[in-house]
Amino acid sequence: MEFGRKLREAVVRNNSLLCVGLDPNPQHLPASVSITQFNREIVAATHDLVCAYKPNFAFYEARGIEGMRALEETVSCIPSDIPVIGDAKRGDIGNTAKQYARALYDSFGFDAATISPYLGFDSVEPFIAYAEKGVFLLCRTSNPSAKDFQDLVAEGKPLYEHVALKAMEWNAHGNVGLVVGATYIHELARIRELCPGMNLLVPGIGTQGGDIEAAVRRGTDSTGAGIILNVSRAVIFASPNSDFAEAARLSASQLRDDINRHRASL
Amino acid sequence: MEFGRKLREAVVRNNSLLCVGLDPNPQHLPASVSITQFNREIVAATHDLVCAYKPNFAFYEARGIEGMRALEETVSCIPSDIPVIGDAKRGDIGNTAKQYARALYDSFGFDAATISPYLGFDSVEPFIAYAEKGVFLLCRTSNPSAKDFQDLVAEGKPLYEHVALKAMEWNAHGNVGLVVGATYIHELARIRELCPGMNLLVPGIGTQGGDIEAAVRRGTDSTGAGIILNVSRAVIFASPNSDFAEAARLSASQLRDDINRHRASL
Repeated sequence: MEFGRKLREAVVRNNSLLCVGLDPNPQHLPASVSITQFNREIVAATHDLVCAYKPNFAFYEARGIEGMRALEETVSCIPSDIPVIGDAKRGDIGNTAKQYARALYDSFGFDAATISPYLGFDSVEPFIAYAEKGVFLLCRTSNPSAKDFQDLVAEGKPLYEHVALKAMEWNAHGNVGLVVGATYIHELARIRELCPGMNLLVPGIGTQGGDIEAAVRRGTDSTGAGIILNVSRAVIFASPNSDFAEAARLSASQLRDDINRHRASL
Repeated sequence: MEFGRKLREAVVRNNSLLCVGLDPNPQHLPASVSITQFNREIVAATHDLVCAYKPNFAFYEARGIEGMRALEETVSCIPSDIPVIGDAKRGDIGNTAKQYARALYDSFGFDAATISPYLGFDSVEPFIAYAEKGVFLLCRTSNPSAKDFQDLVAEGKPLYEHVALKAMEWNAHGNVGLVVGATYIHELARIRELCPGMNLLVPGIGTQGGDIEAAVRRGTDSTGAGIILNVSRAVIFASPNSDFAEAARLSASQLRDDINRHRASL
C-alpha cells in the first residue's frame, strides 16, 4: 500500500501521531536480550499505540553483519499495516543514490526513508521515483549544531527554508516530507507555513526535550494530523530491566494520550 | 597506523595519487563473478598503482546482508599498508553519529570515512574524535545538482565555502579533509586556496568527465600531493569480460601515469 495512505490509516486506526524509534543502543539493552528479541517485544507491546516505527540504521550498523540481520528481522516483525520508516539519512550522487533507494525500499522493504538534501535534486530523485514510498528530507534537524549550516541565510531565507521550498517543487508524486526537530518550534511553525500539506517527521520530544504541546500546535496540518512525532529512548528504554516492554507500552500510551489531548484543544 | 601517514607513505611507495573506487554495480559485474571475487581480483591487479581504495556503501547495501558481508571481505583483502576510505556519507545527531563512527572505524575497520556536513558540528565530532582516522566532509560534490544548495550564497560566501572554513576550524587533530568534485575546477581551486594543507578527496575524473590536468593543477597542495583522485567505473569496469582485472590494471596504470605527468609539470 502507498506510504501516505498506510500512514493515514494507521493514524486513524490507532488514534495516534506517535512514532516509536527502534534505536537499540547496545549500552542500554537489558542483559542477555538480543536486538531482535528486544525490538520484537517492543513492537508487540506498542503496535496498537503508534502510527509508525522508525529504526535508525546507525544502531544496527554498529553491530556489523549481525546488526544488519537484526534490522531485517525487525522490519519483518512489524505488522504490515504499520508503516516503517528507514532512518538512514543517505545522500549520494544519482548513480549511487539509485543503489541506496534499492537497498532501503527493495532490499529492506521500508515504506519510507530519511534522506540528506546536501547533494541536491539528482541525489533525491531516485527515492522520489518510487511513487508508492515516502521520502523525508532533512530540513531543520533537532540537534544543537543544526544551526551551523541550516540557519545560514541566503537570498533572504535560511538554508532550511530553501530545502523546504525545493521539497515542495520536487513533490510531483506527493510522497515527499520533511524532518523537522521539535526542539526548534519557531522553525517548525515556519516550515508548516511554507508546506501546509506536507507530512513532517518530527523527532526531539522525549529525551531531547522538545515540548509536545508546542509541536502539536505548530506542526499539525489543517486536519490536525500531517505530523509524525518520533520518540525513541523515552519509550524503548523506559525501564532498564526485564519489564522493558511493559514500561515501553506505558510510556507510549502516555505519550499518545498527551499528544491527543493537545490535538483535541487545537 | 594513523590515516594521514599511511596515505602519505602509500602515495610515495606507489608514486600515485590514484584511488580506485570499489563500487561493484551488480549490472556491470562479469557473469558468475561474486562481488568479493571481483574486488579481490581488482585489488590484486592494482594495489601497487594506487594510494587508496574507496568502497561506496550503496553498492553493497543494495545486496542486503550478502552485500555487507562482501564489503567486510573486501576490506580484509586490501593490503594493510593501503588506506581504505569508507564512502558512506553518513550524518546524524551526536548520539547516533557515535554509532556510525563505531560502525565505520571499529566494526568495518576503515581508515577514513566520508561524512555529510548538513547536521553541523555535533554530527561530525564523533568521527573527528578518532584522531587516528580520517574524516572527509562533503564540500562541493561532483554531481550536476550540487549547485542546488551548495552554491547558495550566505554572508558573501557559497555554502560549500562555509563548510570548508568550518572544516578548518574543526581540524584540531589534523584528520579532517574535504570531498570536492573534479567536475568543478573553479570551486576546487577556491577550496584549495581556503584550505592549503588539507587532504582533498576528489571524485569526478573518468566516467563523470572531470579533467585530470586541471584537477592536478588546481587541487594539489604545495608539495604536489594532498589530493586523492578517485576513479571507479573507468577502472573497475574497463572490460566487461573475464579479463576485467587485467583491463583494470591497464586503466589504473594509464591514469596514474597521466596524473604523474601533470604533477611533473607543476
